Amino acid sequence: MTTPEEHRAAIEARINEWCASVPNDSLHTPMAYLMRLPAKRVRPVATLMACELAGGPASSAMDAAIGIEIFHNFTLMHDDVMDASPTRRGQPTVHARWNANTAILSGDAMMVKAYECLMTDQRWLPVFNRYALAVCEGQAQDMAFEARHDVSAAEYMEMIRLKTAVLLSCALELGAISGGADEQGRRGLALFGERLGLAFQLRDDHIDAFGDPAVSGKQRGGDLRAGKKTWLLIRGLELERGRGEGLLAAELGRSMVARDVGAMIECLTALGARDESEALIQSMEREAIEQLDALPFPTERKAALHALASSLMGRKA
Amino acid sequence: MTTPEEHRAAIEARINEWCASVPNDSLHTPMAYLMRLPAKRVRPVATLMACELAGGPASSAMDAAIGIEIFHNFTLMHDDVMDASPTRRGQPTVHARWNANTAILSGDAMMVKAYECLMTDQRWLPVFNRYALAVCEGQAQDMAFEARHDVSAAEYMEMIRLKTAVLLSCALELGAISGGADEQGRRGLALFGERLGLAFQLRDDHIDAFGDPAVSGKQRGGDLRAGKKTWLLIRGLELERGRGEGLLAAELGRSMVARDVGAMIECLTALGARDESEALIQSMEREAIEQLDALPFPTERKAALHALASSLMGRKA
Repeated sequence: MTTPEEHRAAIEARINEWCASVPNDSLHTPMAYLMRLPAKRVRPVATLMACELAGGPASSAMDAAIGIEIFHNFTLMHDDVMDASPTRRGQPTVHARWNANTAILSGDAMMVKAYECLMTDQRWLPVFNRYALAVCEGQAQDMAFEARHDVSAAEYMEMIRLKTAVLLSCALELGAISGGADEQGRRGLALFGERLGLAFQLRDDHIDAFGDPAVSGKQRGGDLRAGKKTWLLIRGLELERGRGEGLLAAELGRSMVARDVGAMIECLTALGARDESEALIQSMEREAIEQLDALPFPTERKAALHALASSLMGRKA
Repeated sequence: MTTPEEHRAAIEARINEWCASVPNDSLHTPMAYLMRLPAKRVRPVATLMACELAGGPASSAMDAAIGIEIFHNFTLMHDDVMDASPTRRGQPTVHARWNANTAILSGDAMMVKAYECLMTDQRWLPVFNRYALAVCEGQAQDMAFEARHDVSAAEYMEMIRLKTAVLLSCALELGAISGGADEQGRRGLALFGERLGLAFQLRDDHIDAFGDPAVSGKQRGGDLRAGKKTWLLIRGLELERGRGEGLLAAELGRSMVARDVGAMIECLTALGARDESEALIQSMEREAIEQLDALPFPTERKAALHALASSLMGRKA
């Protein structure tokens, strides 16, 4: 079996080849710029692992893996325009470094390039296309939520499932198809990816409020200060409304600088939102592992995906 | 043989079905809005005609035809954002009616929906993908030209070939493939489309300066007043520089309201740019017809594409 590090090195090598192969012009240079920024490559590595798990050589899933990573980076390029984000992975976003039109057009061409990779195996496209549309739906919901004040915790979960988790499902399912998995194997791996992706995103939000800044590298409560509607905050507000109190709502009504983030964090704990969040994350992680364990493949082959899951889950709150 | 009107009616019916089939949400409603605006449907009609010419039933090319029309409308949605255009086909553009983010995201999802249609026949995608990238390259060149003052007439031709003409090539080639044409038939139809597309765009620019406003429905010289770099203006500036005169350049240096468009039109005629433009358009049209006539299909089957070409070429300057 290939180690996770070997998979990752293979992905990096192919991405470097890909970046070197595109012309140096206004359409392609921003693609290569974004693709070369240091990243974990979770999705393409997951594709190769799923392929090996299902019994195939990782090489048969390589084009799917690269196609998904290109598609993922295309969504980042356009999301950054829509969110007007100045930085990505510590570097200027494409629209900040060039301009919004360049980011729109280069992103469009990047989607075409993703399909170029995904055409290698005709079994991939119908599956990929369904997931690609779901990712767009997730981003649409995310944008719609910004204008709403009544988003429920359940709606938020569905939004991050579509926007974030399904692309990991897709990565795993395309790997499973490449490796020759049957319908049960494909579905199990897709569900494993979805639960893992959800746990990852929820954990990310949780760490922002309750994590150790020395470990996470982020300022504690940055999301709360920005008023970002995470599951944690939405659930906190729901619980608060039920009790008739209003510290969270009151703090959100203040300006960002005046906001008492420490008090909000204490309030989330007191309301029980912290415990609920932790329990939710753990149940997602448990469901992910159960899916993996239940798959009809030899146990020893599951080590790589177990390691991947652990690396995503192991971050400490 | 199917008449052009029957092809068009079939396309409209399928577009209406498609628009009715998408959910009524922020992602899909703008797609249906744009697709429903009255349009000539030149590309999808050309696909069906090419299929019948090659000996296939038009129905076998229908998904390709719709996919290309969806892709074309996706490019319009994003181009309108990039150009900040307020109207399209006499109606507000998607970003004007909703907002830029909606236009970006709905356009992205529209590309996914185009691929959904284009997956029906696995012979289509590799061909389509090459053309789709070329369309992006054309738009990139168009944007790059805005910042340059030394674009040559030859560079402009290559830009409109990519941005405008190749999608008509693509429409015809996918039709040819669906109808079972061999390599020669595919290439001939693609080249017919490219020449026809170039002639159409050049004619459009020509009519703006020299056409009868009563026929074209446009104000004469609108492009010149806006300082739009058409082939005509670029070639006029080239000729003017060769002669050491400078009326065109001087008028372009003035503000739009102060610009003497009538004098610019006279100048283009005096410089010989009008005659060159007319000759160029006619040579493109001739080459298109020669390609069509040379195709190894029964002459009587070519009537539909001859009629399509005539309708595009017949507009009077």
